Amino acid sequence: MSLIVKKFGGSSVANAERVFNVANRVIEDYKKGNDIVVVVSAQGDTTDDLIEKALEINPDGCSKRELDMLLSAGEQISISLLAMAIEKLGYPAVSLLGWQAGFKTDSNYSAARIKSVDPERIRAELDKKNIVVVAGFQGTNKFDDITTLGRGGSDTSAVAIAAAMNADLCQIYTDVDGVYTADPRIVKNAQKMNEISYEEMLELATLGAQVLNNRSVEMAKKYGIELEVLSSLEKKPGTIVKEYVSMEKMLIKGVAKDNNVSRISVVGLEDVPGVAFKLFNMLAAKKINIDIILQSVGRDGTKDITFTVPKDQRATTIDIINNAKQSLKFIDVFFDDNVSKISIVGAGMETHPGVAAKMFEALFDSDVNIQMISTSEIKISVLIDINDSEKAVNAVHSKFID
Amino acid sequence: MSLIVKKFGGSSVANAERVFNVANRVIEDYKKGNDIVVVVSAQGDTTDDLIEKALEINPDGCSKRELDMLLSAGEQISISLLAMAIEKLGYPAVSLLGWQAGFKTDSNYSAARIKSVDPERIRAELDKKNIVVVAGFQGTNKFDDITTLGRGGSDTSAVAIAAAMNADLCQIYTDVDGVYTADPRIVKNAQKMNEISYEEMLELATLGAQVLNNRSVEMAKKYGIELEVLSSLEKKPGTIVKEYVSMEKMLIKGVAKDNNVSRISVVGLEDVPGVAFKLFNMLAAKKINIDIILQSVGRDGTKDITFTVPKDQRATTIDIINNAKQSLKFIDVFFDDNVSKISIVGAGMETHPGVAAKMFEALFDSDVNIQMISTSEIKISVLIDINDSEKAVNAVHSKFID
Repeated sequence: MSLIVKKFGGSSVANAERVFNVANRVIEDYKKGNDIVVVVSAQGDTTDDLIEKALEINPDGCSKRELDMLLSAGEQISISLLAMAIEKLGYPAVSLLGWQAGFKTDSNYSAARIKSVDPERIRAELDKKNIVVVAGFQGTNKFDDITTLGRGGSDTSAVAIAAAMNADLCQIYTDVDGVYTADPRIVKNAQKMNEISYEEMLELATLGAQVLNNRSVEMAKKYGIELEVLSSLEKKPGTIVKEYVSMEKMLIKGVAKDNNVSRISVVGLEDVPGVAFKLFNMLAAKKINIDIILQSVGRDGTKDITFTVPKDQRATTIDIINNAKQSLKFIDVFFDDNVSKISIVGAGMETHPGVAAKMFEALFDSDVNIQMISTSEIKISVLIDINDSEKAVNAVHSKFID
Repeated sequence: MSLIVKKFGGSSVANAERVFNVANRVIEDYKKGNDIVVVVSAQGDTTDDLIEKALEINPDGCSKRELDMLLSAGEQISISLLAMAIEKLGYPAVSLLGWQAGFKTDSNYSAARIKSVDPERIRAELDKKNIVVVAGFQGTNKFDDITTLGRGGSDTSAVAIAAAMNADLCQIYTDVDGVYTADPRIVKNAQKMNEISYEEMLELATLGAQVLNNRSVEMAKKYGIELEVLSSLEKKPGTIVKEYVSMEKMLIKGVAKDNNVSRISVVGLEDVPGVAFKLFNMLAAKKINIDIILQSVGRDGTKDITFTVPKDQRATTIDIINNAKQSLKFIDVFFDDNVSKISIVGAGMETHPGVAAKMFEALFDSDVNIQMISTSEIKISVLIDINDSEKAVNAVHSKFID
């Protein structure tokens, strides 16, 4: 008998038919004698509908405390419906809200972090042989006010329960049937992986593979929870995300493309110590997510710094920099939204020289110009023109994986 | 400075425009320096929409625990939207769910009774000068599970808060602008009352005046909370419901009509002691609400018992009686759905002889036949043909009030 935590997203419970599909998937494993905790998100477009209601009241943005109160009603609806469906099929179920399931968070409304999960109530319900349906995405803070974990937070809810209860497996059901070596919509030879390490998954998630929420992978890694990414519709094994064990031969695990990136160049900065620190410290204070950074060699007493940010932070970043023109002392600042980041990910890369060269060769052969390069122990990323992105992903995938 | 509890129903917060209307009404009294607690129901048809979702999952009826979990999401949406609207207008507000506002109930899901209200959190928010918006209709039981008070329960929520906090006034905002001497849609000379006692209001509510939920009036009476029934749209004083003080002259407070009634006759019962007890004890065990009872004088060793029940309990009642034919020993049972109960209500009635005669005279003058009569200290009811009901209400109203 195992304890299995399962997470289903909003599209998996979008209507009564799909709710029953989820109920059946859950019951299947329950009938085998397993203890089952199911975490669900709000139905289909519920969250968007609720946000719409809030915007009608205040288009300028409501208080986040009240927004969290509003949005958390979405999961309340989906958990009760799923519990009803399980009961209708003849099996015992009980739904629990975030606070009932013991989720304690900080008070960062709309993007709260889980501080602890007290699984006492969940355990009591499992002992009564109930299938326990838990509202993802939500908890309460020290004031007993409702908080939400931010979009995609239901993955994190599932992993947090799995960690707190030392579950045997945490299954994340999605629209896709696993983690692929590249986006199957772009690369026709993309292959599904049976296994991938936390680190590789983290790099792929960061790079826009959008299969798993990043925070959930970080938490799974921290507590050693084995994740399985699998299809909510087809019944077949998915991809297991687990501890990196050892790696005889270097293996490129995937090629990812991220178009949600803008390149910003600050030109003509004084070539003195502390300039980069001053710039990035200022941006960090405003919570700007910096990715690739490139600094030119100083010449004529000035230097240029180029870096990338998510597209939706580009305008803010430019404002921050322009407002600091006096203290930063630079000549001009430019940006380019028409860029794409292509990355290869694979544990063991650092012990295999020539990987970067092989990637650059693939791009050169396809006539793709590289604007920036960034490397880590298990990742190599390049910034290229957005119009070349699909061509580049296919070229790199062919070189390493096909 | 007073503490005022205000309650707004679902139609009062049905859309963004109406939510702002409520926000403005609330702010008006807040600006005068009062502490304000607002209790709201779910928006317009939200409850019906949620019930529809549940029926899609299980047309045979879901578990009531899960139904309460589902339905309570309705108020969660409306309280957060109202708090957002108040904030948008520049005033501080905080929304609280039933459990956050300290509502403890029994475990009778879907029709729970309030056991206690711990107003600690509400008081703390008032101390911070917040307008406190509380979800009506809901609480939690001793298992920390969500319960609902049943339809109309938001009135009770408001009165319970007023009682727990010793509020100066509890205002119930409705579609009508107060309590009338008769239904203004039927009797064109119906007059709005400035004041009415709890007892009179209870009789009127029972009689189908449908202005206030009965449980809320009972609770207000028990704790001596002054209620005001007033319009959510028009700004004018409503009707105050309060302790019956003293009554110099007899005053008929209202004429009510109730068409939700069926007459049942059990014919040819043995004329021996204990027959009526056996019959009504059996019906009470099945929770049938008996109203007027009439027993014929025994003749030929048999007697007949006639009584009224709500229309939706008529079929069950007939079944119960037929199933007990052996033990009850009667000849036949009949029913009539085409009846209406007309009542006059007024404290002090018992000390003024001739009131009943005056009522019967009005009916006689209008050629209305009386089928049954029932009297209490502050009420006289008659059962008549349903086709005569409007004529009868007008005739009686003219006689006593016009």
